[in-house]
Amino acid sequence: MAAFAAGVDVGGTKIEAIVIDEAGSVLASSRRLTPHEATDPAGAALADAITDALTELLGSDTTVPVGVGLPGMMTKNGVLAFAPNLPTANGADVVSLITQRRPGTSVVAANDADCAAVAEFYAGAAQGCEDFALVTLGTGIGGGLYSRGRLLRGRHGFAGEIGHMVIDVNGPPCPCGSRGCWERFASGSAVGRLAREAAAAGRLPELVATLGHPDAVRGEDVTSAAAAGSPEALAVTDEVGWWLARGIANLVAILDVSVVVVGGGLGTVAELLLPPARRALHDLVEGAAVREPIELRAARFSAQAGAIGAAFLAREHHR
Amino acid sequence: MAAFAAGVDVGGTKIEAIVIDEAGSVLASSRRLTPHEATDPAGAALADAITDALTELLGSDTTVPVGVGLPGMMTKNGVLAFAPNLPTANGADVVSLITQRRPGTSVVAANDADCAAVAEFYAGAAQGCEDFALVTLGTGIGGGLYSRGRLLRGRHGFAGEIGHMVIDVNGPPCPCGSRGCWERFASGSAVGRLAREAAAAGRLPELVATLGHPDAVRGEDVTSAAAAGSPEALAVTDEVGWWLARGIANLVAILDVSVVVVGGGLGTVAELLLPPARRALHDLVEGAAVREPIELRAARFSAQAGAIGAAFLAREHHR
Repeated sequence: MAAFAAGVDVGGTKIEAIVIDEAGSVLASSRRLTPHEATDPAGAALADAITDALTELLGSDTTVPVGVGLPGMMTKNGVLAFAPNLPTANGADVVSLITQRRPGTSVVAANDADCAAVAEFYAGAAQGCEDFALVTLGTGIGGGLYSRGRLLRGRHGFAGEIGHMVIDVNGPPCPCGSRGCWERFASGSAVGRLAREAAAAGRLPELVATLGHPDAVRGEDVTSAAAAGSPEALAVTDEVGWWLARGIANLVAILDVSVVVVGGGLGTVAELLLPPARRALHDLVEGAAVREPIELRAARFSAQAGAIGAAFLAREHHR
Repeated sequence: MAAFAAGVDVGGTKIEAIVIDEAGSVLASSRRLTPHEATDPAGAALADAITDALTELLGSDTTVPVGVGLPGMMTKNGVLAFAPNLPTANGADVVSLITQRRPGTSVVAANDADCAAVAEFYAGAAQGCEDFALVTLGTGIGGGLYSRGRLLRGRHGFAGEIGHMVIDVNGPPCPCGSRGCWERFASGSAVGRLAREAAAAGRLPELVATLGHPDAVRGEDVTSAAAAGSPEALAVTDEVGWWLARGIANLVAILDVSVVVVGGGLGTVAELLLPPARRALHDLVEGAAVREPIELRAARFSAQAGAIGAAFLAREHHR
């Protein structure tokens, strides 16, 4: 097996480890449930499960570099500083824990959206782009930013927390403590919220008639109805597309990216969100007349983006 | 004269050329009025005036590298793509125009706020910081961003247009076409606007009594009164400080900088704006508990920041 690198994606529910070839194709994969028991040190059970999945794929071969993507704020040294969905692993020194369990292996760990950006850079929609942003639309919004052909990591390694860019100071409260964070308007949960607002305002009569009550409307109901061509549902996905463009225009002003790749769970409905976002973007971007047109692209990778990118990052780190 | 590099700052009214030593000290300077007549090619009169000022300082010595800072969107190749205050120079290939006039000279040109960041990096408040943001508070808000010890330039060279990050989608209209850009709340003109709002709402009774009418209140009146300890004026500068912190917190989420340097014309009232901004910042920054405290620092350089930074950039480019 031409194992180029191994990547692991850690989610709140499951862990997926994969081995890729140089082109980013997945050669083998292995899954474990994510353990949530408290351990001392923090993250020990998580590291056991990750190592177990890796051993299934690699045996005792320590020459294959390993990358791990995690859903939280990761320091450059591979410490999980904060992860709301992995509370028992907060503070875990992921790189050390895995290196202890696989002595001799080169290990790197990073935020999962950062990993997804790495995947798109090496083998996906951002190949050849030195400066781009990856926007992952899931429960919230994550980001991975590239500058001069390298991941922009910042002081600690926390760069790319773009979902908590406030775009409406008087907007709805966010669990982070601020109001009007971008992810309140353009994430998977935002689709649900905006859909229920539209339903309560009488703008989704057909869906409400089907589901029985405005509060019963979920994001998936709207995206399904929009995909089926319902004009009232398309009005909601168009609204979400506008908010997506609003945040992207901010990123363009700050970072001067001309390619933005949209991925994540909600990225699978890219065909609904990207057309309205593209229509809105030109008017929202400062200095659009003197810039190249901003390209919004759907991500190549979806569920395995984090693991594939982690593997590429491991190889980059190992060079 | 130990001329390390020459720098030119181009403003809407005047041009200042300087020569610095290695420490950033200004050894000599020369000024010209900014010409505004239309020329073919665009910017020819501007380039003549810049060259004239440089010749006064350097004579025919072409070994000293030259940097030019301009108030607009500059491409990496030194073309002034858009400058509202220099309409007759829009589209000028500044580097070529000056190189034609001083053959053999190494010339570089960049946005003036980018240059100011370079000055702070080499010789000012950001020495030793690999990742920081410079925020210039003038009529609007400009920015210069550093990542991994280098200026973050983006695809075209336009990165750092942070004043047009929208933080209040329903906020006041901005000349750029959007609503609620950051510079509507935390620039020199924003102080005036927020002051008149406060005056109209009866929150500046002493100032209005002195000036005769709420509409007569200018930003300078409020900053002067605040500097003299007026509680009602301090309430306004505290509000501006909060908005300053709100935008900075967005930059921290996106870029993970832990040092933010505040300069520009309004930066001279840093002692009024930075304390309330510091008080607000911790609560506004996502994940503040796991980050180093964000340091807000007053810039070292003020009026000559652009010219000094342009000179350092020229030297960096010339190496």
